[in-house]
Amino acid sequence: MEREKVEIVEVGLRDGLQMLPMIVPTAEKLEWLSMEAAAGVKRFEVASFVPAKNLPQMADATEVVGAARDMRGLVVAALAPNLRGAVNAVAAGAQVVVMPVSASAAHSMSNVRKTPDEMVEELGHVARMRRDENWNIHIEAGIATAFGCTLQGRVSEDEVVRLAVAAVEAGADEIGLADTVGYATPGQVKRIFSNVRAAVGDKCKSAHFHDTRGTGLANVLAALDTGIRSFDASLGGLGGCPFAPGASGNIATEDLVYMLESMGFDTGIDLATLVAMQPTLKRIIPGQELFGKMTKAGIPLGFAKDKMAAE
Amino acid sequence: MEREKVEIVEVGLRDGLQMLPMIVPTAEKLEWLSMEAAAGVKRFEVASFVPAKNLPQMADATEVVGAARDMRGLVVAALAPNLRGAVNAVAAGAQVVVMPVSASAAHSMSNVRKTPDEMVEELGHVARMRRDENWNIHIEAGIATAFGCTLQGRVSEDEVVRLAVAAVEAGADEIGLADTVGYATPGQVKRIFSNVRAAVGDKCKSAHFHDTRGTGLANVLAALDTGIRSFDASLGGLGGCPFAPGASGNIATEDLVYMLESMGFDTGIDLATLVAMQPTLKRIIPGQELFGKMTKAGIPLGFAKDKMAAE
Repeated sequence: MEREKVEIVEVGLRDGLQMLPMIVPTAEKLEWLSMEAAAGVKRFEVASFVPAKNLPQMADATEVVGAARDMRGLVVAALAPNLRGAVNAVAAGAQVVVMPVSASAAHSMSNVRKTPDEMVEELGHVARMRRDENWNIHIEAGIATAFGCTLQGRVSEDEVVRLAVAAVEAGADEIGLADTVGYATPGQVKRIFSNVRAAVGDKCKSAHFHDTRGTGLANVLAALDTGIRSFDASLGGLGGCPFAPGASGNIATEDLVYMLESMGFDTGIDLATLVAMQPTLKRIIPGQELFGKMTKAGIPLGFAKDKMAAE
Repeated sequence: MEREKVEIVEVGLRDGLQMLPMIVPTAEKLEWLSMEAAAGVKRFEVASFVPAKNLPQMADATEVVGAARDMRGLVVAALAPNLRGAVNAVAAGAQVVVMPVSASAAHSMSNVRKTPDEMVEELGHVARMRRDENWNIHIEAGIATAFGCTLQGRVSEDEVVRLAVAAVEAGADEIGLADTVGYATPGQVKRIFSNVRAAVGDKCKSAHFHDTRGTGLANVLAALDTGIRSFDASLGGLGGCPFAPGASGNIATEDLVYMLESMGFDTGIDLATLVAMQPTLKRIIPGQELFGKMTKAGIPLGFAKDKMAAE
């Protein structure tokens, strides 16, 4: 029996690394990338095209995107907060350009010094340039702080829907909803994804959850219920946003793979290979706390990808 | 609008403490108990009636149960692996006697040196003595390793259903399903709870999850979907089973309260009071790692018990 596919987007090289105190050399980023690609991960968000003085960790974005493109069969995404970043991402070879549109005005100003609507406008500039220059890329709007914000607290759910619609009208091919600061809870996830999907359909395609308050995988479950089949995650649960105080840790790729495969979904990823990457990850980012629980607890005795599907 | 109630059973004083290297003095157990009762927790599993030489941490079970009964309005549960333990629990004043029936034969032999069916028989002895002695207690069968076992790997789902039915026939008033070793995943949780509830109805009342592999709260969500409205949890995510190698950490009470209240459920528990207990807990069990994520990350800005229900 064919298992239903779920896509996992590894964002560790971007979201996972950007808050760390040390700069990871390009060669070690590529070592991580190629090992995880060998485990079966197909889509990576590998870099952020921002000025190197703002995020020195991302100074090698062009090299990393280029090298990722040289690996066969990967989908290579990069974050760009503006037109200039998008131009550079496309020049480097990115196939997906992710533009952050914060649903919290306060977070948007802190993160990109633009209002949410100005960010939608910026996305429109990228879409027009894509048309004019015949770029073969997907544009994804990542609706940041869609579930709450450490700076302003609650975020209007209507505003999330409005911005998703505006981003699609401006030219976004895909909408992702992001719990940038780890506030999301399952009831809210179900409601907001349902509302956004009612407004823009399957273009609302992916979810980005942090596990800051323990609800990360429960939120995945809630999003699965609304039809979402693409999730961002970070190996070892690394991650956070430098402009969202208190935020820490994307959901861990290994824990997400464990849960999804156990539920009978096909991620195409080999859990044992991911878990075996732990020493490499520890060497690449020495002294950093890792949060993946699978790696600490070990793969269950008798675990098989299809254990649930088969019973 | 009336919010739907969910019961949280604090098991930290039993499951949370039993693996720790230090013996917590009775007075400090009671300090924990009374503070958490003040936060609104109504039901506690406070002790295990086993020989003190096996579990020195539980040597004061009689005193702890007695003192808990002296606090108004609490439901006091205690674990008993056999008739003698149940007699002692009832003499001490326990209102609920929890008897562990492992669905894994290997775990059952390690844990209580009885087969699963012998444990059901033992539960029958307790039920008969309740009748003969007019005990006013509830008997709960905790079906341990219901979702897998570190010793034998997979556990037959049919066996879980069979044992639940047998326990009810032997006189159990309530069935709880326990993921003793942290193997459970949501699809499995939904399937097994549905099957057990189809067989014994609402007598299958509660869930006991560990967060060993990150799926704890996702499993809660899956169990909620099957109608379960009672969950065991441990403050700070303490816990584990001494006979289940690799197991660690019940779901954290504070994270569970956060998720449930955010979803519009009424736990009757004040989250801020729980979070404020952290220094007390750290003093009571110095040097022990605590796993509650809410306590580390803080209560979200703008969080209110009914924030989701109100929107």
